[in-house]
Amino acid sequence: MHYSPLIQNLIDSLRGLPGVGPKSAQRMALYLLERNPDAAQSLELSLQQAREKVGRCQSCRTLTEEPICQLCRSERRLRHQLCVVESPSDLLSIEQTGVYQGLYFVLMGHLSPIDGIGPKELGLEQLSARLAQGEVTELILATNPTLEGRTTADYIAQLAAQQGVAVSRLAQGLPMGGELEYVDSATLSFAFSGRKPVDS
Amino acid sequence: MHYSPLIQNLIDSLRGLPGVGPKSAQRMALYLLERNPDAAQSLELSLQQAREKVGRCQSCRTLTEEPICQLCRSERRLRHQLCVVESPSDLLSIEQTGVYQGLYFVLMGHLSPIDGIGPKELGLEQLSARLAQGEVTELILATNPTLEGRTTADYIAQLAAQQGVAVSRLAQGLPMGGELEYVDSATLSFAFSGRKPVDS
Repeated sequence: MHYSPLIQNLIDSLRGLPGVGPKSAQRMALYLLERNPDAAQSLELSLQQAREKVGRCQSCRTLTEEPICQLCRSERRLRHQLCVVESPSDLLSIEQTGVYQGLYFVLMGHLSPIDGIGPKELGLEQLSARLAQGEVTELILATNPTLEGRTTADYIAQLAAQQGVAVSRLAQGLPMGGELEYVDSATLSFAFSGRKPVDS
Repeated sequence: MHYSPLIQNLIDSLRGLPGVGPKSAQRMALYLLERNPDAAQSLELSLQQAREKVGRCQSCRTLTEEPICQLCRSERRLRHQLCVVESPSDLLSIEQTGVYQGLYFVLMGHLSPIDGIGPKELGLEQLSARLAQGEVTELILATNPTLEGRTTADYIAQLAAQQGVAVSRLAQGLPMGGELEYVDSATLSFAFSGRKPVDS
C-alpha cells in the first residue's frame, strides 16, 4: 500500500531536499495537499522563478538574479579588501557580524579533483585577473576550516603571492563561550601551539 | 544584507513547509540553486502535477488523482468494515500493520468549531448516507487519541448508533515496548483504570 503515484512523486521530490527524511517528506506533502494549497503554489512559483532567473554575479560569483549583485555595486564597500568564501551562506554569516566592509569573492565550492572541481570551476582565473588589476591590496581567505577548505586556501594564497597581494586568514582557535573540556582535540592542540603572549 | 529577492522568496516559501526553520530553508534553497538544479526542477514539476490533479476519492475522501482510490476499488477488501481516520497518513500507518482488511473513511481533520470545521467539512453527511445503505456493519473509530479526536469520534458514534451500526474504537493503554516510568500520567491512569483480568 502506497500513496497514489502523483502524491508519491511529490514525497520523493521533497526527500531530495537536504535534511528531509521519509517521514518529514510525507508530512510536508500531505500538509501542502490537504491544508495549504497556497503554500504549494507559492513554492512552485518561487522555484520556477529562481530556476529561470537566478544566476551568478559577474563580479563576485554569488547567486543573484542581477548581472552584478547589490553588494558589488554598493559604493559604501571598501574596494581594496577582497574576502574569499566557499558559499553565499558563508558570505551572509560574515555580513551578519558587521565586522567587514570590503568585497567578496564566492568560490561556490572548494577544490575537489575527485569530483572534477578544479581551479577553473571555482573561477580562480577570474580571481587572478582581478588581483592583477591592482585595486585589491588585501586578500582575506575565509574558506571553511576543513581539509578541503585549507587546501583551497593554500592554492589561492600562492596565486595572490604571484600577484604581490597581501594575504590573510581568519584566526583559528577556541570558539567563544565554549568549554575547554568539550572542544575537539585538533582545535585544542592548534590553540595551544598557537598561544599568544598576554600584554601586561 | 539579504539574499537577492528571488532567492529570498524561495527561502520564504521553503519556510512554509512544516518543520523547516530559517537555517534549513536557507540550506535547502542554496542546495537547489547551487548544486542540484535537477532536484529543483523535479520538485517544481511534482508540485505542479500534484496541485493540478490530486483531489479526493469520491468514496473514502482520501487524497488521490483518481475518481475512486485504489483501495476503495480493490476486490480483496472486506466491505462490511469501515475504519474512520483523520488523515491519509493515519490510513497508511494502519495499512502498514497489515491487521485490517476493510475499507476506510478519511475525515481530513477533526471537529474544530473555532476553525470553522464542522460535520459538513468532514464529510459526515456522506458517511451517514453510506451507513444508511446497510453494507457497513461495523464502524471502527481510529481518530487520534487527543481531545479533538475523541470529540469527533463521540459525534460519529452517535451518527452510527442512529443508523443501527455497531461501533468500536481502538484500544487505549500502555504502548508496547515502553517503560512504565516514562509513560505520561494520563495514559498510565487510563491503563490502570482500564485494567483487564488475566486468564488463568
